[in-house]
Amino acid sequence: MITSLQNPAVKNIVKLSKNKERQRQQLFMIEGARELSLALQSHYAIDSVYVCRQMLAKTKYPQVLDSIPDKLVYEISPEVFAKIAYRENSDGLVALSKPKAHALSDLQLSGNPFIVVLEAVEKPGNLGAILRTCDAAAVDALIVCDPQTDLYNPNVIRSSVGGLFTVQTAACTSSEAMSWLDAHSIHTFAAELTAAEFYQNIDFTHPSAIIMGTEADGLTDAWLQYAGNRIKIPMRGKIDSLNVSVSAAILIFEAMRQRGF
Amino acid sequence: MITSLQNPAVKNIVKLSKNKERQRQQLFMIEGARELSLALQSHYAIDSVYVCRQMLAKTKYPQVLDSIPDKLVYEISPEVFAKIAYRENSDGLVALSKPKAHALSDLQLSGNPFIVVLEAVEKPGNLGAILRTCDAAAVDALIVCDPQTDLYNPNVIRSSVGGLFTVQTAACTSSEAMSWLDAHSIHTFAAELTAAEFYQNIDFTHPSAIIMGTEADGLTDAWLQYAGNRIKIPMRGKIDSLNVSVSAAILIFEAMRQRGF
Repeated sequence: MITSLQNPAVKNIVKLSKNKERQRQQLFMIEGARELSLALQSHYAIDSVYVCRQMLAKTKYPQVLDSIPDKLVYEISPEVFAKIAYRENSDGLVALSKPKAHALSDLQLSGNPFIVVLEAVEKPGNLGAILRTCDAAAVDALIVCDPQTDLYNPNVIRSSVGGLFTVQTAACTSSEAMSWLDAHSIHTFAAELTAAEFYQNIDFTHPSAIIMGTEADGLTDAWLQYAGNRIKIPMRGKIDSLNVSVSAAILIFEAMRQRGF
Repeated sequence: MITSLQNPAVKNIVKLSKNKERQRQQLFMIEGARELSLALQSHYAIDSVYVCRQMLAKTKYPQVLDSIPDKLVYEISPEVFAKIAYRENSDGLVALSKPKAHALSDLQLSGNPFIVVLEAVEKPGNLGAILRTCDAAAVDALIVCDPQTDLYNPNVIRSSVGGLFTVQTAACTSSEAMSWLDAHSIHTFAAELTAAEFYQNIDFTHPSAIIMGTEADGLTDAWLQYAGNRIKIPMRGKIDSLNVSVSAAILIFEAMRQRGF
């Protein structure tokens, strides 16, 4: 059992909270038995699993380790778990996994796809919340363009509650995404505060993508020029803005409502 | 100009991040010129304003101090502002204000009210996000029952981006809220993961309230028994849950869509 906070493996895991280290080690952290189960279902390549057995005894997902070879599982003490854990009150398990490629060409679409495109999303919590919404709505794919936030940021994984593993996600440049959308004949709707068309009057029943920018600055001109329509959500209050994950959810669920879920 | 971090006023402001101190002093913090403008429009009683002029020079709301008597305004140094500020990159202004009563009897309703009721909301960030959504949708009122989070928690104010000041908000017990809803003949819809009815099939065009519980445990039996209908949002993914502020937004905006905004 690993009990020392000075253990090299422990020190390496702590470093993985930094993007640069995730790039260098080509590994990222999955915390929680449920999250690991979802990653396994999506065929993530697990490198190793660090388990505090007395904490994992309380998990709702006791079978999580059944498919993991013993030689990849390391026992750790509660003190070591506390050192490497990112969340409060999780269930004593941290896995390290290799990242996926997230290539546009890997996306598999339904006959009538609905896609969510995010340009330059800044806050990991917003990206995570949108992934969670994309899971619930079973959108075909999320495309993250020119990301300011790494998909494997621990805050994305935490706030997506596993959505990163269940939603088909591509990361690419904006121009790559535009070419891909063209190639798949997907109609595009850019969310813009000053757009002329209200989302509730839009027909989302055909192959569609909604495109969202940052809360602070919205979409760049390249996307506003590219999009087939520019749409907005009516704002009747004094603040005149919505959280980007809330705006995304309103648009996504209106599309799903029109499509009969 | 206050330049010392040991100044008693500075120490008092720092203490206001704690609920107990807000209760004791009967004051709370408003950070940001825009937020103060919204609080002033809603007739909050301002006790004092602490201003770092060189930072406020960059604000988009330079008129914010025009209606504040000079004797309530204190100049502070950038170091003092950094000590008392709760947000990153705000514009050099912190006001102290008296709380409002948030009594049910103070709520003023339209002829066809739409109300949002939250039971035991736990996370300040979720409460703030819901306030922001309630502002955008111009709901009649938000009722917070048996709150685990103080309305004047700095994280509520920050994440509501001023929505706490623009949305009519009552805080009360669940039984008080039920009596009030009865007295106003408002039909109630309880959000529940296992409900039989889907939200998109509900008619929200009459006087209505949606009632939301916590993400972890949902609503208590008292509310589930009380509500006229139990409704759910279709979940087609693997995670089977949505963020509570996202769920609230989906329901609120569907109601507004039906009502023609």
